[in-house]
Amino acid sequence: MPDRPRLDFWFEFASTYSYPAAMRIAPLAEARGVDLRWRPFLLGPIFRAQGWDNSPFNIYPVKGRYMWRDLERVCGALGLPFTQPPSFPQNGLTAARVALAGLAQGWGEEFCRGIYRAQFGDGRDIGEPATVAGVLAALGQDTEAALKQAQSDAIKNALRAQTEEAQRLGIFGAPSFVTADGELFWGNDRLEAALDWALSLSRRGGER
Amino acid sequence: MPDRPRLDFWFEFASTYSYPAAMRIAPLAEARGVDLRWRPFLLGPIFRAQGWDNSPFNIYPVKGRYMWRDLERVCGALGLPFTQPPSFPQNGLTAARVALAGLAQGWGEEFCRGIYRAQFGDGRDIGEPATVAGVLAALGQDTEAALKQAQSDAIKNALRAQTEEAQRLGIFGAPSFVTADGELFWGNDRLEAALDWALSLSRRGGER
Repeated sequence: MPDRPRLDFWFEFASTYSYPAAMRIAPLAEARGVDLRWRPFLLGPIFRAQGWDNSPFNIYPVKGRYMWRDLERVCGALGLPFTQPPSFPQNGLTAARVALAGLAQGWGEEFCRGIYRAQFGDGRDIGEPATVAGVLAALGQDTEAALKQAQSDAIKNALRAQTEEAQRLGIFGAPSFVTADGELFWGNDRLEAALDWALSLSRRGGER
Repeated sequence: MPDRPRLDFWFEFASTYSYPAAMRIAPLAEARGVDLRWRPFLLGPIFRAQGWDNSPFNIYPVKGRYMWRDLERVCGALGLPFTQPPSFPQNGLTAARVALAGLAQGWGEEFCRGIYRAQFGDGRDIGEPATVAGVLAALGQDTEAALKQAQSDAIKNALRAQTEEAQRLGIFGAPSFVTADGELFWGNDRLEAALDWALSLSRRGGER
């Protein structure tokens, strides 16, 4: 029997194009029968290794201006709400830690979509604990318990390990998608190609 | 009567993703009834304005490795031949000047496709006069006359002016597409969106 196809979805909460990817990946994967793993990580250490202490969209303003306009168009085409947040990039550390805890407990995906919607749909600051708490509350989670767990050493270490794994996989931006054989796809635009690759692998597996 | 939709296709011969864009843009535009203007320009001065003296794919090797693999996949999906050229980025100055002359004389588009095919399909060096001459000869052009014309002050100035225009339009990479109302789209992935935008403008024009 062929393995069921799977795809790792690597994302960083501060990443703009991760927003449309996060909002559309689940139904696309479901329709193709691909199992997803949601893998939050931090771009900061990866950018620093490339010599950047800020988002390249801020370092290169002409590219940044284009990105915001393009993101608005991409969201418009997908019917996603879009508001450019007043500050960029935002601090997604707490959200990433909470997501890691939530993904192990079954409410992580909905939390991730909630964080992206708060930031790029409503233009809120996800670095504010109140924003993260609001998303948790909307999911019916015990806000205080979730935020406390997110500060545990286990979660902190898990996020650090996940970021190191992303770097080992050759990930340099977000969103990225990695198939079971290590094939890397970068950008919201490559989601369909990544799903196709995952499926073709699983078919080849079935022919062995 | 509505204006016929048009789209400016801005490309640089050294640009990797301009290759698939150049090979597929004409039939796509034709099928949608969009008039194309092929606009060669030089990325060098634009990159220098951003503080780069080399391609970002060389400055950031992890991104460069990904790009070559991704380009191979993109070309594979389109059925385009692909060979990574031994050197990158190549010097596309002569080719751009010849293209500018050829576009005014009706053989420019085929020349542009020939240059891209030589570089990224066959892995040849388009900075070599022999490569440019070979593409010209395959089109039945008078090689010597075309190369001489490309060195004229008129053509040199026209290419310089075109590069300055690209910069004024906010272009920071290639391929780029610009509609009649100045909307900018960057990357081979955005070709369809740019054509759609050009069409929607022309429809709105028709409703005035």
